[in-house]
Amino acid sequence: MAREYAKSLDRLINEFQKMPGIGPKSAQRLAFYIMSITLPEAAELSDAIKEAREKLKPCSVCFNITDIDPCFVCGDKMRDQSVICVVSEPKDMIAIEKTREFKGLYHVLGGVLSPLNGVGPETLRIKELLNRLRDGQIKELIIGTNPTTEGEATAMYLTKLIKPLGIKITRIASGLPIGSDMDYADEMTLARAFEGRREL
Amino acid sequence: MAREYAKSLDRLINEFQKMPGIGPKSAQRLAFYIMSITLPEAAELSDAIKEAREKLKPCSVCFNITDIDPCFVCGDKMRDQSVICVVSEPKDMIAIEKTREFKGLYHVLGGVLSPLNGVGPETLRIKELLNRLRDGQIKELIIGTNPTTEGEATAMYLTKLIKPLGIKITRIASGLPIGSDMDYADEMTLARAFEGRREL
Repeated sequence: MAREYAKSLDRLINEFQKMPGIGPKSAQRLAFYIMSITLPEAAELSDAIKEAREKLKPCSVCFNITDIDPCFVCGDKMRDQSVICVVSEPKDMIAIEKTREFKGLYHVLGGVLSPLNGVGPETLRIKELLNRLRDGQIKELIIGTNPTTEGEATAMYLTKLIKPLGIKITRIASGLPIGSDMDYADEMTLARAFEGRREL
Repeated sequence: MAREYAKSLDRLINEFQKMPGIGPKSAQRLAFYIMSITLPEAAELSDAIKEAREKLKPCSVCFNITDIDPCFVCGDKMRDQSVICVVSEPKDMIAIEKTREFKGLYHVLGGVLSPLNGVGPETLRIKELLNRLRDGQIKELIIGTNPTTEGEATAMYLTKLIKPLGIKITRIASGLPIGSDMDYADEMTLARAFEGRREL
């Protein structure tokens, strides 16, 4: 685009355009933002990118993104070492951590099964999960993949695979979000809410 | 946000959140994008930010953002030295350049008059524009501020100020965009299209 721009501005716009969800207009807007901040502020951003990419690695136990290994969860001996919650991405794990409800361990798959996109079981960290389950410490496996088609398929696949090991397997509940209006819920969600009803 | 994140990831998310139009979710998405690219790719982005901020300066003549001074337009003696098009931001100038219709010079105001936001005439490069007009070379001044309330007010202000110098002042046309449907045009635009009608 825009060969009329000064070369370094053009380069920056191109770099921003590679980012997900950033089109030509947003990239231009971000580039002009860079022009508007002070030199130290720009250096701060620039360094943050470099540092994050250089320092952060997947945790060797659960594959959460971390700058210490094992990560803050795996390294915390106060946490319940008998429960693992399987999630798709590190951000799902963080979302769960924010609730402060779950005190067990995690396992980050690095995606969900998606044959159409070429994501098979060997692409995900399933082998590593099985290795963790084999030491006999784990009593429950909570499958915390998203309630999407692919997340559900992944949950089913894991259940079939792990059931024979004799470990209790649970799935996070689907249903109406708190504060929502039944009238606006989609049919699938409402059907799930009925299916998953509990006695009071 | 998210003190559960690794420190360098948290820092990066915070940096991204400072950018315009980037909320917490987008900042997180961009940070995970950084994790997903290679080290050289991350370095490329990081350097582009630093380089752009360090190298780019306003052109000393027209205040376009440039890495050479005077900028590629002001330095091009083949361009019509008797016409200046006044725009608000460098990106407006680039938009005009892309049409390849205009062969004159530019003057970037650095904004539009907006008393409510504390932008008065002294904040814009109006004094510098007047200096350029005083050398007598300029025959026409095209006011290319956006057809918004503030852009119009700025155009009126400039007209009043510069008219006494005896320079021809023109305003870019407002009307229906090419390919648009009259039925969907707002009243202001349609009224302008009538007002600005031309004989065929």
